[in-house]
Amino acid sequence: MRFEVTILGNGSGSPTGTMHHTAHVLNVREQFFLIDCGEGTRSRMVRMGISPLKIKAVFISHIHGDHLFGLMPLISSLGLAGKQTPLKIFGPAELRKMLDFFQHDFGPPVGFELDFTPVDTTKHLRIFENRSMEVWSVPLRHRVPSSGYVFIESGNGRGGCGYAEHALADAPAAHALQLKHNFYPRSYAFMSDTHPSPRAADIVREACPAGVDLMYHESTFAEAEKRLAKNTGHSTAMQAARIAQKAGAKKLLIGHFSSRYKDLSLLENEARTIFPETFIAAEGETFSVSRIPVL
Amino acid sequence: MRFEVTILGNGSGSPTGTMHHTAHVLNVREQFFLIDCGEGTRSRMVRMGISPLKIKAVFISHIHGDHLFGLMPLISSLGLAGKQTPLKIFGPAELRKMLDFFQHDFGPPVGFELDFTPVDTTKHLRIFENRSMEVWSVPLRHRVPSSGYVFIESGNGRGGCGYAEHALADAPAAHALQLKHNFYPRSYAFMSDTHPSPRAADIVREACPAGVDLMYHESTFAEAEKRLAKNTGHSTAMQAARIAQKAGAKKLLIGHFSSRYKDLSLLENEARTIFPETFIAAEGETFSVSRIPVL
Repeated sequence: MRFEVTILGNGSGSPTGTMHHTAHVLNVREQFFLIDCGEGTRSRMVRMGISPLKIKAVFISHIHGDHLFGLMPLISSLGLAGKQTPLKIFGPAELRKMLDFFQHDFGPPVGFELDFTPVDTTKHLRIFENRSMEVWSVPLRHRVPSSGYVFIESGNGRGGCGYAEHALADAPAAHALQLKHNFYPRSYAFMSDTHPSPRAADIVREACPAGVDLMYHESTFAEAEKRLAKNTGHSTAMQAARIAQKAGAKKLLIGHFSSRYKDLSLLENEARTIFPETFIAAEGETFSVSRIPVL
Repeated sequence: MRFEVTILGNGSGSPTGTMHHTAHVLNVREQFFLIDCGEGTRSRMVRMGISPLKIKAVFISHIHGDHLFGLMPLISSLGLAGKQTPLKIFGPAELRKMLDFFQHDFGPPVGFELDFTPVDTTKHLRIFENRSMEVWSVPLRHRVPSSGYVFIESGNGRGGCGYAEHALADAPAAHALQLKHNFYPRSYAFMSDTHPSPRAADIVREACPAGVDLMYHESTFAEAEKRLAKNTGHSTAMQAARIAQKAGAKKLLIGHFSSRYKDLSLLENEARTIFPETFIAAEGETFSVSRIPVL
């Protein structure tokens, strides 16, 4: 019963020839969700042994090429592979234009529906739920509308363990509920391109009162480039660490690194001065969350 | 004074995780031309040490994703890198829709002009010329309109050595002209996705009466898949070899391989039974043509 995130790329916008663009695959009990889809994602998935046909839904954080130029090739590839069921896609409203262009103006439309749901990047809303998982949006602060996503495991059809109940209940009540169900809802927060947002940290804490198990937070720059981070709507590794701390995260993954850093341990070490459980979101690595009870 | 082709990818449409999509970089005396632009081209260029900013013009053979999904990311990247001069782009008329979408509907337009020239894929025409090179289109036979391109070195500003003269002159007269100018116009024929076309072979022979120095011809399949090749508008390695032979090519590069072939020497060997000077267009390899006199 897996709950794990595989990192396909940890580079930012500038091409380095070695780092890949942002794309994470979340496996929740063998249901696969793709989060952002930079150029080359399809090929990276195949290399990691993850069939693109397994993807149940795609979540795009914002309309910058390094987070979505892999989407048209992925959709095209799914069409060639004979996919017929709809593909759920979530992202800022502007994404619809690209999907419409692809389906209607590029060539013959692919043989399955692109089931697009626009995400209001200013609100914290539940945008997806099934028997395995709930997904909530988290408003971020970037140069263009940008949304993070919190993925929270559901009670495997037993209900009563979702975020809605968590948010309503005080922490001891939530714990009691979990013990009763012998179920610990695992969680992952994906904090894409953003200037550090205390509001976003509060939202994640509210969504996961027991603490989000794994938080990814972009960390484009080291502390020396703090001003550049501000001007470009990005975060430093230390700023990411403070957000993880404020959100009550258990573990922090940092990524979306500027190509200027040849040795990423600089960023990891800076973040660890504030949040010791920080790790580089290394390309090709899979980070698992165990199914263990709380307390 | 280089005239060389670097192979960025030799895979076909299906992702393998190891092969890349079609993209060739032609370097004519330090002027760089990009031919087809599959997903990941930008990153492949950087890895090969070829700055995308050096690209003088882009030639797209046809509107299938594996030949052009890298174009929007490349253009986006050039914009971020501060390019201001126009980028010349050649390809079937349908390409304009993608370029228009990208410039007007995707996000802020890039800060340079996309100078698009539609190529009539049914005709053999001169579509580009400068002091270094002439480019001629070659009609191909694929499932969608598809054009090959013949690149012929010009007389470095001395004039009188271009294809126009060649085509008009009989071979001895052309040779005399070359000897007079002490100049041998090197040439490269790029034969993208196509069912074997004897007409295309004749066109290349006419364009390069002394024999094209280097011909790339797609060879998606081995001879055992001849029927599949026909049904999909592709060629086998042996069919490619026959085209090279008919065109009077000096050397043949084969590529665009179906992902079913783990050992590409099968295709190389089949082609060599007909055209011994056949080579795999190996990814990352550069094929040079020497500046030697004819005769």
